[in-house]
Amino acid sequence: MQKTGQDLSPTKHLVTTYLSEIKSKVDACIFDFLPTTHQHPDVHQLYQMMLDYPRRAAKGLRPALCMLLCEAFGGDPQRAINTAASLELLQNWLLIHDDIEDGSELRRGEPCLHQKHGIPMAINVGDALHCKMWEMLHRNTEILGHELAFRILSEFIQLSNQVVEGQHIELSWVSDNRWNLDEDDYLTMCIQKTAWYTCITPCRVGAIIGGASEAEIDGLVELGKEIGVAFQIQDDVLNLIGDVGRYGKEIAGDISEGKRTLVLIHLINACTAAEAQQVIDIMARPRDEKTEEEVESVLQLMQKYNSITYAQQRSQALLREASGRFNNNFAHLHDGRAKQLFLSLIHFFVEREY
Amino acid sequence: MQKTGQDLSPTKHLVTTYLSEIKSKVDACIFDFLPTTHQHPDVHQLYQMMLDYPRRAAKGLRPALCMLLCEAFGGDPQRAINTAASLELLQNWLLIHDDIEDGSELRRGEPCLHQKHGIPMAINVGDALHCKMWEMLHRNTEILGHELAFRILSEFIQLSNQVVEGQHIELSWVSDNRWNLDEDDYLTMCIQKTAWYTCITPCRVGAIIGGASEAEIDGLVELGKEIGVAFQIQDDVLNLIGDVGRYGKEIAGDISEGKRTLVLIHLINACTAAEAQQVIDIMARPRDEKTEEEVESVLQLMQKYNSITYAQQRSQALLREASGRFNNNFAHLHDGRAKQLFLSLIHFFVEREY
Repeated sequence: MQKTGQDLSPTKHLVTTYLSEIKSKVDACIFDFLPTTHQHPDVHQLYQMMLDYPRRAAKGLRPALCMLLCEAFGGDPQRAINTAASLELLQNWLLIHDDIEDGSELRRGEPCLHQKHGIPMAINVGDALHCKMWEMLHRNTEILGHELAFRILSEFIQLSNQVVEGQHIELSWVSDNRWNLDEDDYLTMCIQKTAWYTCITPCRVGAIIGGASEAEIDGLVELGKEIGVAFQIQDDVLNLIGDVGRYGKEIAGDISEGKRTLVLIHLINACTAAEAQQVIDIMARPRDEKTEEEVESVLQLMQKYNSITYAQQRSQALLREASGRFNNNFAHLHDGRAKQLFLSLIHFFVEREY
Repeated sequence: MQKTGQDLSPTKHLVTTYLSEIKSKVDACIFDFLPTTHQHPDVHQLYQMMLDYPRRAAKGLRPALCMLLCEAFGGDPQRAINTAASLELLQNWLLIHDDIEDGSELRRGEPCLHQKHGIPMAINVGDALHCKMWEMLHRNTEILGHELAFRILSEFIQLSNQVVEGQHIELSWVSDNRWNLDEDDYLTMCIQKTAWYTCITPCRVGAIIGGASEAEIDGLVELGKEIGVAFQIQDDVLNLIGDVGRYGKEIAGDISEGKRTLVLIHLINACTAAEAQQVIDIMARPRDEKTEEEVESVLQLMQKYNSITYAQQRSQALLREASGRFNNNFAHLHDGRAKQLFLSLIHFFVEREY
């Protein structure tokens, strides 16, 4: 795996310490909130299923972005805790439905929920967590008052509209068997499907609770796009070359699933027409009709045409743009722990190896 | 089909006129709200799919209950329009997901959404409408102010928790291949899965906007349970003996789907052990492994053991209880159009033939 020139090890410890601190606070909030027991055995079983994905190891990027931005704008991050927890609930219901829609097998090192309990129950568990997200946001009134709680709700509504549209674009590519995609197609999909819920909204809601101005809040859209896309590209790279034990999904699972990543789009546009046809033939077939050798042959072509390296470079470039933008736009903010941690955090996530 | 002693024809016209008046107001609100066009062709396609179920003919029971209760408590029903529209959006996303979970084929006379576009897209369209429901409820602030809009949100949260639990109970029966059910099992499931979103919450939110007291609002839970269960039993009866052109689903589709209705539960408990085993053998098999003759044989046993008649009688008894409860509990309300229409409406829905 390529490394950037920068060595982050001195700050890496600070980031991981911060992440685990936030994660335990947010987990406490979530597990205090989600129901755990019910006298009706079937409802009790539903509650256990609702706890499944939230209990699986996650890095907690989204809550960390939210809490840090709140702090960077001078707010008390504790006031953002329900909102940060809502971001985790969002992530969990989205993943449950996304895993069904993509026919995925593993999530965070364990079988996907629909692999364990079937599609009907998994859809309903996703819906149950989706409802719990709005319930958690409703509880924000107690901390933030009506007006601010409503503002946060409207941010989640905006984000929801983005994420279902991004998801539909990607599902349309599968449904239409479409492979003639360029980088712009990828960026449009990735910003809507991933960047909004992974970075734009987490940053915006944190900043709003922290007391940022409307101009400052608006400035977070571009920043969040860059970080979110960089993050997703790195995720797709790790899917191809990561370590299954640390990454938690099957390696090259995206090739098995036929996922249109930046790496794949680069390959199809860079290789010969004959190779492109061969790649598409393999990618387009259902998972269980692909051999390991075929998946491996796509991976080899990605290496031959430097598609993985290209994606890593794009991801690094986006990270540099985001860092520069953050330093420029928010030069007036106090140069304290939150700003430093934010920069370290985004480097950590884009340069992570799992 | 059995008729009750009461002849409702003089008031039936009033009810259908009122329903179509409310439906056109609520439809105007929904179609003004849902997005229709987008320059990205895939997002445009998503918008069309989101409009599919809302455009199909529906009777509009839920918005009517909401608007009538608002009026009965002396409120301006126009203030309840967004809330009524949210109830329709709720119904639509629930149906999309429910149809996938049950493996249904027809909905309101057309193929189910997942039959037209596949399960992945249909899950996402359901999620998109689900998000739109909360967006519509968020817009309530403009009409109702923050505090009342938040109260309505909390009613929808309570309802959502009920409906996913009821849905899970029913899915558990399928997953566990469970058939030794009694009427109490059915009632628990039906109240959570159907009565809450069909009657309890529509009545409660209408009453809240109309200015009802907390005691009056609480009194609507029992009333809504009775009406909601009566309504569902009648729906299950129509599934067995209705006219496909008017009913909009396949006749005896519930037998094909293996659905645990009150009719079926009565039959299994009333017939001989050998017949029960025969019925369960047929019901438990997947839809495509059942012959028409087998479905017909279950239907004949339901007739032989008067299971359909029994269900109709239970439904009628619940309706009588609900009418009596309404008259007793709300005797102090002005005896105007809204109270009369409410009573006519619940009779109409429980005695409907489509």
